[in-house]
Amino acid sequence: MSGQELNLEGDVVELTRVICDIESVSGNEKALADAIERALAKYSHLTVLRDGDAIVARTNFGHATRVVIAGHIDTVPVADNLPVKLLPMEREQVLWGRGTVDMKAGVAVQLKLAATVASANTDITWIFYDHEEVEASKNGLGRLSRNHPDLLDASFAVLCEPTNGIVEGGCNGTIRVEVRARGVKAHSARAWMGENAIHKSAEILNRLAAYVPGEVEVDGLVYRESLNAVLIKGGIATNVIPDEAVVTVNYRFAPSKSGEEAAAHLCELFDGFEINMTDLSEGARPGLDRAEAQAFVAAVGSEPRPKYGWTDVARFSALGIPAVNFGPGDPNKAHADDENVPVGQIYACESALRKWWTD
Amino acid sequence: MSGQELNLEGDVVELTRVICDIESVSGNEKALADAIERALAKYSHLTVLRDGDAIVARTNFGHATRVVIAGHIDTVPVADNLPVKLLPMEREQVLWGRGTVDMKAGVAVQLKLAATVASANTDITWIFYDHEEVEASKNGLGRLSRNHPDLLDASFAVLCEPTNGIVEGGCNGTIRVEVRARGVKAHSARAWMGENAIHKSAEILNRLAAYVPGEVEVDGLVYRESLNAVLIKGGIATNVIPDEAVVTVNYRFAPSKSGEEAAAHLCELFDGFEINMTDLSEGARPGLDRAEAQAFVAAVGSEPRPKYGWTDVARFSALGIPAVNFGPGDPNKAHADDENVPVGQIYACESALRKWWTD
Repeated sequence: MSGQELNLEGDVVELTRVICDIESVSGNEKALADAIERALAKYSHLTVLRDGDAIVARTNFGHATRVVIAGHIDTVPVADNLPVKLLPMEREQVLWGRGTVDMKAGVAVQLKLAATVASANTDITWIFYDHEEVEASKNGLGRLSRNHPDLLDASFAVLCEPTNGIVEGGCNGTIRVEVRARGVKAHSARAWMGENAIHKSAEILNRLAAYVPGEVEVDGLVYRESLNAVLIKGGIATNVIPDEAVVTVNYRFAPSKSGEEAAAHLCELFDGFEINMTDLSEGARPGLDRAEAQAFVAAVGSEPRPKYGWTDVARFSALGIPAVNFGPGDPNKAHADDENVPVGQIYACESALRKWWTD
Repeated sequence: MSGQELNLEGDVVELTRVICDIESVSGNEKALADAIERALAKYSHLTVLRDGDAIVARTNFGHATRVVIAGHIDTVPVADNLPVKLLPMEREQVLWGRGTVDMKAGVAVQLKLAATVASANTDITWIFYDHEEVEASKNGLGRLSRNHPDLLDASFAVLCEPTNGIVEGGCNGTIRVEVRARGVKAHSARAWMGENAIHKSAEILNRLAAYVPGEVEVDGLVYRESLNAVLIKGGIATNVIPDEAVVTVNYRFAPSKSGEEAAAHLCELFDGFEINMTDLSEGARPGLDRAEAQAFVAAVGSEPRPKYGWTDVARFSALGIPAVNFGPGDPNKAHADDENVPVGQIYACESALRKWWTD
């Protein structure tokens, strides 16, 4: 089969429906990547490159400035919610099914604009990448930044992740540590021969329960932090005084802090216990103090908010490129069995981005 | 093979060695039970009965009183520690290997006395039973008490479990409950949308850590209670605010309390949390206020102590028969890879029991 031909110049909602129905659960992006590559190759104002199942299309308008507009083409596993349906909901029509929110509506907007914006006030690099919904080591945007760092070069980046059509700047960092209390094993019939590590871990939980998370202003946005036990485990048998209890703690920290500072904060907070870091991702500053960002916010006309969850904007941030999230769909519906996007948000997102370049 | 013939009238340490080398891990007691049945059947002062792999041998001296002397013939799995070795330790000789402590030295003492005590100041019921080291439902003593309750009838019982040759009276009861804290799930990047159940469980641990366990005098012995978290578990993923945390608590309670009273105490202590009882075994009063018990203690000449761990004495207690533990070997060596018993304790135990009946 030669694969499906995409019509990039028609209705963006119909395009969303078509690309959702090309199932592309992480690892199975090839058919969709092929279709996108073929469709974009028809436009002479674009230079199309491919790395694995990531497609990059660049304009060459000759401007001094360049922005990146990126989105991932993979989804989490289908939950009996394909093919996509167009449903009338109480107040609006929605596209219902896997990928509609996270994030093929955003990808459809990218595709239509890539095809139809043949002149603009800046050069544009369109990125469509694979493997966002799985372990970070497979991430297509990460691979592109290693194999072709020049392709990501820009003064500003927009990730079309679902934000309900609101500009969400940067993201919190996230760090996970195991905080460990140790004791001495004994038979529970002679408990006084041991030391109960679970009882000792009460102090870890007390410090967590008493902690007041910060609200930190960064580049004009207020980031709400959080500090939580996400796992706890202790004990080996119901007749043994436990010699170990481990609390896994997740700290979401404002992007003004480095990962190192976040780790130091946890070491101080859990002084007296063993600490083992299992996971760290730096946050991303929203960069809304930059001219490019301000122009974008003014053009799309929404009050920017902080992004709390970690997203790939942090990869741009790590390259020194300010980045924001902006796309159709409610992030709370991402990955849900009833994943669905109001079609009005898809049209609004298309108009807002087009306006940015043509104002 | 017709099976090994046991010499019950020779050296009790040699008899211990021989019956240890007839491997009898729970479920595999038949060969040893056969040998015991054959050996005891030779003695005209004994009436021998069998139920599964449990052997009961009763004297018929015509006394108004009767005591039970019981021991289990199974062991926990062998840990490359058979056949038994006679080793010189720093201060004494020991029999080293599986079963030497728990509890074939005690069984050897029983067997030799059953064969050689052909007259006494009381009638005696000797019980050798199977399946003590596995789930309670298989316990041979429990099965005997259901199938032949008359065979257990006595005014006093001694269980020859290892006690270092000291009389250990009764046993604490044991109850296990799951104490559950509930919360509301949320993504850990937006923790304020949820309620952290692990943080809430801090209060459970605080109550445990602050608890001062009782020391309760029962029939002249002081029972030390204990209350401990033995397991804790909570959380489902490292990016989710946990909606449940469960602390498994083990309360070892003095035998003056009923299981119902112990459960009520835990409900009061963990008021405000969900409680689910998973396990309950009543304790056993030592019954040292009874004449039979006092005569026994005087004869064996040791200061009685409370037993903290739960043992089958509780089965006698449930039948209204006071019972104590008394046997050779250090209970802390039971089940150990280096399980071993000082041979001096085996001889001392044999002499003490013989003295009780012949004084």
